[in-house]
Amino acid sequence: MSSQPSALSPQSSTKDIVLAFSGGLDTSFCVPYLKERGWAVHTVFADTGGVDAQERAYIEQRAQELGVASHRTVDGGPAIWNGFVKPFVWAGEGYQGQYPLLVSDRYLIVDAALARAAELGTRAIAHGCTGMGNDQVRFDLAVKSQGDYEIVAPIREIQKEHTEVRAYEQKYLEERGFGVRAKQKSYTINENLLGVTMSGGEIDRWQAPGAGAVGWCKPRAEWPSAPLRLRLGFASGEAVTLDGEKIAGHVLLARLNELLAPYGVGRGLYTGDTTIGLKGRIVFEAPGLAALLVAHRALEEAVLTKQQNRFKPEVARKWVELVYEGFFHDPLKTDLEAFLASSQATVNGEVVLETAGGRVDAVAVQSPHLLNAKGATYAQAADWGVAEAEGFIKLFGMSSTLWAEVNRGGAA
Amino acid sequence: MSSQPSALSPQSSTKDIVLAFSGGLDTSFCVPYLKERGWAVHTVFADTGGVDAQERAYIEQRAQELGVASHRTVDGGPAIWNGFVKPFVWAGEGYQGQYPLLVSDRYLIVDAALARAAELGTRAIAHGCTGMGNDQVRFDLAVKSQGDYEIVAPIREIQKEHTEVRAYEQKYLEERGFGVRAKQKSYTINENLLGVTMSGGEIDRWQAPGAGAVGWCKPRAEWPSAPLRLRLGFASGEAVTLDGEKIAGHVLLARLNELLAPYGVGRGLYTGDTTIGLKGRIVFEAPGLAALLVAHRALEEAVLTKQQNRFKPEVARKWVELVYEGFFHDPLKTDLEAFLASSQATVNGEVVLETAGGRVDAVAVQSPHLLNAKGATYAQAADWGVAEAEGFIKLFGMSSTLWAEVNRGGAA
Amino acid sequence: MSSQPSALSPQSSTKDIVLAFSGGLDTSFCVPYLKERGWAVHTVFADTGGVDAQERAYIEQRAQELGVASHRTVDGGPAIWNGFVKPFVWAGEGYQGQYPLLVSDRYLIVDAALARAAELGTRAIAHGCTGMGNDQVRFDLAVKSQGDYEIVAPIREIQKEHTEVRAYEQKYLEERGFGVRAKQKSYTINENLLGVTMSGGEIDRWQAPGAGAVGWCKPRAEWPSAPLRLRLGFASGEAVTLDGEKIAGHVLLARLNELLAPYGVGRGLYTGDTTIGLKGRIVFEAPGLAALLVAHRALEEAVLTKQQNRFKPEVARKWVELVYEGFFHDPLKTDLEAFLASSQATVNGEVVLETAGGRVDAVAVQSPHLLNAKGATYAQAADWGVAEAEGFIKLFGMSSTLWAEVNRGGAA
Amino acid sequence: MSSQPSALSPQSSTKDIVLAFSGGLDTSFCVPYLKERGWAVHTVFADTGGVDAQERAYIEQRAQELGVASHRTVDGGPAIWNGFVKPFVWAGEGYQGQYPLLVSDRYLIVDAALARAAELGTRAIAHGCTGMGNDQVRFDLAVKSQGDYEIVAPIREIQKEHTEVRAYEQKYLEERGFGVRAKQKSYTINENLLGVTMSGGEIDRWQAPGAGAVGWCKPRAEWPSAPLRLRLGFASGEAVTLDGEKIAGHVLLARLNELLAPYGVGRGLYTGDTTIGLKGRIVFEAPGLAALLVAHRALEEAVLTKQQNRFKPEVARKWVELVYEGFFHDPLKTDLEAFLASSQATVNGEVVLETAGGRVDAVAVQSPHLLNAKGATYAQAADWGVAEAEGFIKLFGMSSTLWAEVNRGGAA
Repeated sequence: MSSQPSALSPQSSTKDIVLAFSGGLDTSFCVPYLKERGWAVHTVFADTGGVDAQERAYIEQRAQELGVASHRTVDGGPAIWNGFVKPFVWAGEGYQGQYPLLVSDRYLIVDAALARAAELGTRAIAHGCTGMGNDQVRFDLAVKSQGDYEIVAPIREIQKEHTEVRAYEQKYLEERGFGVRAKQKSYTINENLLGVTMSGGEIDRWQAPGAGAVGWCKPRAEWPSAPLRLRLGFASGEAVTLDGEKIAGHVLLARLNELLAPYGVGRGLYTGDTTIGLKGRIVFEAPGLAALLVAHRALEEAVLTKQQNRFKPEVARKWVELVYEGFFHDPLKTDLEAFLASSQATVNGEVVLETAGGRVDAVAVQSPHLLNAKGATYAQAADWGVAEAEGFIKLFGMSSTLWAEVNRGGAA
Repeated sequence: MSSQPSALSPQSSTKDIVLAFSGGLDTSFCVPYLKERGWAVHTVFADTGGVDAQERAYIEQRAQELGVASHRTVDGGPAIWNGFVKPFVWAGEGYQGQYPLLVSDRYLIVDAALARAAELGTRAIAHGCTGMGNDQVRFDLAVKSQGDYEIVAPIREIQKEHTEVRAYEQKYLEERGFGVRAKQKSYTINENLLGVTMSGGEIDRWQAPGAGAVGWCKPRAEWPSAPLRLRLGFASGEAVTLDGEKIAGHVLLARLNELLAPYGVGRGLYTGDTTIGLKGRIVFEAPGLAALLVAHRALEEAVLTKQQNRFKPEVARKWVELVYEGFFHDPLKTDLEAFLASSQATVNGEVVLETAGGRVDAVAVQSPHLLNAKGATYAQAADWGVAEAEGFIKLFGMSSTLWAEVNRGGAA
Repeated sequence: MSSQPSALSPQSSTKDIVLAFSGGLDTSFCVPYLKERGWAVHTVFADTGGVDAQERAYIEQRAQELGVASHRTVDGGPAIWNGFVKPFVWAGEGYQGQYPLLVSDRYLIVDAALARAAELGTRAIAHGCTGMGNDQVRFDLAVKSQGDYEIVAPIREIQKEHTEVRAYEQKYLEERGFGVRAKQKSYTINENLLGVTMSGGEIDRWQAPGAGAVGWCKPRAEWPSAPLRLRLGFASGEAVTLDGEKIAGHVLLARLNELLAPYGVGRGLYTGDTTIGLKGRIVFEAPGLAALLVAHRALEEAVLTKQQNRFKPEVARKWVELVYEGFFHDPLKTDLEAFLASSQATVNGEVVLETAGGRVDAVAVQSPHLLNAKGATYAQAADWGVAEAEGFIKLFGMSSTLWAEVNRGGAA
Repeated sequence: MSSQPSALSPQSSTKDIVLAFSGGLDTSFCVPYLKERGWAVHTVFADTGGVDAQERAYIEQRAQELGVASHRTVDGGPAIWNGFVKPFVWAGEGYQGQYPLLVSDRYLIVDAALARAAELGTRAIAHGCTGMGNDQVRFDLAVKSQGDYEIVAPIREIQKEHTEVRAYEQKYLEERGFGVRAKQKSYTINENLLGVTMSGGEIDRWQAPGAGAVGWCKPRAEWPSAPLRLRLGFASGEAVTLDGEKIAGHVLLARLNELLAPYGVGRGLYTGDTTIGLKGRIVFEAPGLAALLVAHRALEEAVLTKQQNRFKPEVARKWVELVYEGFFHDPLKTDLEAFLASSQATVNGEVVLETAGGRVDAVAVQSPHLLNAKGATYAQAADWGVAEAEGFIKLFGMSSTLWAEVNRGGAA
């Protein structure tokens, strides 16, 4: 059995395959398609916060209707917090300095699918990614990096022969008596605990997003007039309290999303260099992650040394790149996280966030590790002498001024 | 004559010295102090946009009153645009990812002082920096890196013997019959074309800035209710038009400040690792620079290659560090700017900015260099085949999956 | 016409195609193969120093014998010096710190082929790379990055159907009456002006290279007993004189190869992470490049500022990666070279190299730009005072010692 | 009591101070000088391998003769291996890519002195560094970063008033009846377990080092004619066996020095940008470290992923800089070492080293973690298809070729 995306396997005896399932058109199509090729299809829905109870029930019912061998709904909240949000906030910046990696739930969905496969004793995994995007890279590499699995990607397979794939899928399902929810959407929307992304249409064409390109974030006219203040408590760089109350990470993030979206916080728009080399322009909304990043950074600025603050972004940026590009399981990511975890030893304390709308600021910081000199106030009083400052300047700039002396002349 | 900050020179015959002069307490004090030590004091005020005509007149009158040998007011606008703003926007990020280097006018002030010294045929330069802050590093290194000058820093000298320096200066001036403008300020404020910074008081103590810590940016209650749209045109990465109108850079920046400050754009708060090693927490307001950075980044994201977008931040960050720390004239800065200038060859086009308050977004981008594939739309249609995508994933992830194969086992 | 590697084009009317030709089995096979598919084959041999006059004559004769429409031999020396060696020496390090990029002649071969194509008015280019290695990446990307060309890779095509490719090629040629030079080689050898690489066999298996894995470098027993001294003169970072004599770059490199190979200089062995993700272990010999790198580095260490020496390797490493991976024409490479060129402004002077065998050392350096302080000798005498040194240490280490104070306690 | 280098403390009651002592002129001078200022002087000699038993005895006797309150000789071998050599080999490169940080024993000497101070219940530490060099930075910062200590540096103190310091010290000792070993040395020599450095004289003037500038490394004429082969075994990146025999690290390093110095391995010459900003040119000899670096790198090249091999040098370089510049105890160093330690998880195996003189090569590598693909041999056979390679090239180079399409035109 090969780990490479193989041709479908219409074998005589039924074999088990685990399908990461969302209930949408693509993954609905996958069920009968795989069944007709001899697979017993076990669907897994990893709920990472993008749906409500009603939608969750719909997904389960849909799976049954499509004739799956089994269906599981997995609570992805703790996994996405520990596996992604925690190290992401340690890293402290988005992809290309902007994008908060909102599709990283894919990695946790893969984990849920592999765990289900282990239960079933199969090494066959299916997903509904197309051959056009970057998610297939994340999905395939995350699977392959965890062992020798057979990956089946039905949409990618039919794309080898058909161009109007969504129409093909719809017809395929209807011919077999399965309804298709009519969703004529202007944008490609992705939503989970981390946030919402919107792409497609005029966004792709570098034009101003239309009025419909909104997710959780309220427009200015609806922002509350009273400002909002929050206190976030951190322990070893992880947010553990909200206004003094201890609270599980994924619940905290959900609550921050609810609190800050009304103020339009965390909405952005950027063009990314995607893994496959194309430009991808998207609108994203991630109020909670924005708040976590702002608070965490303010705390780090105050407690890390200059050497740490200078170098940490190099490590952070590489971590972000690996996660963006599908290298979630490369050993380098483990190494980078060892660095990040070490750097968080003193990132303890409380940060006050404030928003009046549009952005959120970290207005106050408390920590036992604040690096404030007892005898000095910046630019006003110091526990060093003026001659010491002059000596510092002289030696600190020596190489540079020596260069000037040698290369600029400058005799009086 | 040595380039090192020397003891003052009470020589028999009068010698010329150029003093960078702002009319404030520190530099006012410097005039009689230097005169009494035998210097003929030539003041230079480099107007980089922090003052209005009335204040400019006051400064000139103050210099005369203090008995300077000559006074010059220099228009620093074009110099600060070309020497700082242009490459800063190319670099595209602030110090520690936050602070837009608002004190960089110091370098242009030094240049104005050195130009005046050349006219006068002297190599003696004075400044009013204390021995406690970072400005002295910028000032001293900028002077020393341009030749062999004698630097006299009267405030630093008196600090060697006195602790209550400002009181000492005030008394010194009053004893000689010079008035002192009573400015009892809660904060240390710095203001120029680039923006406003506020520090001191509760800001230093990592507490929420008081209601008085405001500069140009309006609070939420005063934001206009109608959103604002602007068009910025770039040529080789330099902003050259506003809403289609060609306009000199420093004038453009001033206009952006006026347009965006009412919406509270560009205000921030951060803790910096300063050159001398202490933490320095400041509030800053730079509406115009914020707008320039946002627009420029949106254009770069759309026209630079993935390789360029990935690597350019390394260069940018080093440029920012050099400017922050006083290495404005190190040859490395020249080398970095050669890179940056080269990278801007295709950064041409127009960006639409929009603000409803709090932040500004780049909502649309136009350029003849947009890197959009004719045959492909991201994640929807492509001019490559599915098998090609599969091949890409396989080889792109090869090292990582091979590692898993060798080190994770994973036989079915 | 598409820029993607297309199926072969058996069109009715003859079309011109330019084939990069070396006279070996692979490119010999390409000629009849392309002709039978309707192409008029124009061979180009870019002589970058790997062959002598006899071999060059053989190549021309071989092309005629195979029935090409035309053949050109191009002197690749100046192009490889200016296009690769000069910026490579500026960069100053090999791939993964080791490998001096000896296959970079590919890029100049592509340029020669494209120039020939322009003469002929065709946009079809053929090469003999396989689908297994990294050269195909370099070749394809170098072509595609310079315009919209049709690339035909016959070996890659036959690999789609045949596994024993070299046997297939040999039989194909013999069936058509073309002889095949019997070269039963233990290693895959690549040789040009830059050096020699050897791979395959036990080298691939991480074993000690056999006695036959030698190129130009003599073994210890044959090293001359007298040491060798050379003087290399640099102007703006480019080697322009040898022992005081002005000499063209590619001739200089050839002479360094001849002088230093007898001493076994420049031989190395490393395992590279190749573009396609596999490990590739090779033996390389590059005596001349080794000498250039050592001399140039010694000069840079002496004339660049600390800031330059610290940062330049970041730029260098990226340049090296781009060249290794096929991104020879990405605009980032242009940007990096702007930096590198700027950094070489003061890299002027003469360096004395010495070898007694095994390695080469830069034993003396002369330059008008040597950064030696007039008043100071390192660690012995200084033009700064002790108090200045103490002040420097205090402020230089402030952030670090403040951290210790806050986090380590340490009261007396 | 302040942690800043303070004026000497001529207090009434005797206080204990710990002096890092080498028996040379500088530290011998320190003993009577400190005693006369009221200190009870406790000397510590941290033997890190630079002396033999006879010299060690001399040092102890010298301390007694000078009238110390106590003397301790500490075996610094294990500390220097674990505290420096192990992470240095993980890092894998020298300062500025060249210099193997041979003065890093300073940090372990400080640790030995602080341990002695803790025993004695004092927080006063003395050292014999001058105010001209970089060692004072390492010494002072290493002390200050571990708590609140009083640092006394007698040589630095007398330099405030005297210029011919060594003559002053000699006279001072002789006047008090202490002999001075006549060492008229051409070079400043430093020697410990790590290697030997030589500076001063013509070396400082960028001339070829004289015949006397040799340490352990034999000249070519004395190299053994038979090549030497060694096997080094690594566990988690630490060298633990030599030719199959398990052996303590510092003993292993000493043995490598003995084995490889006769072949002239590990000798180098470079100009460094020192902490205080001056250029420092030195000759260094470190045969054992050279062998460890070469072997370790060969193993890493074979077992780390491409992502790891690409990024690890960034981390390594920063670690090296911190150690060079005195930041041995900054928390960033801890963070970097967490990364490095993590990266060594699979750096297990055996490497065969070979030297014929002048340099040492890693000719063979064995490891259970070798990243060789079962189905593929680099550039010859592969477990991917040609179409997959073509797909890879297309998407891998997409951004770059798209740029060419947009900006270069290129219509057929």
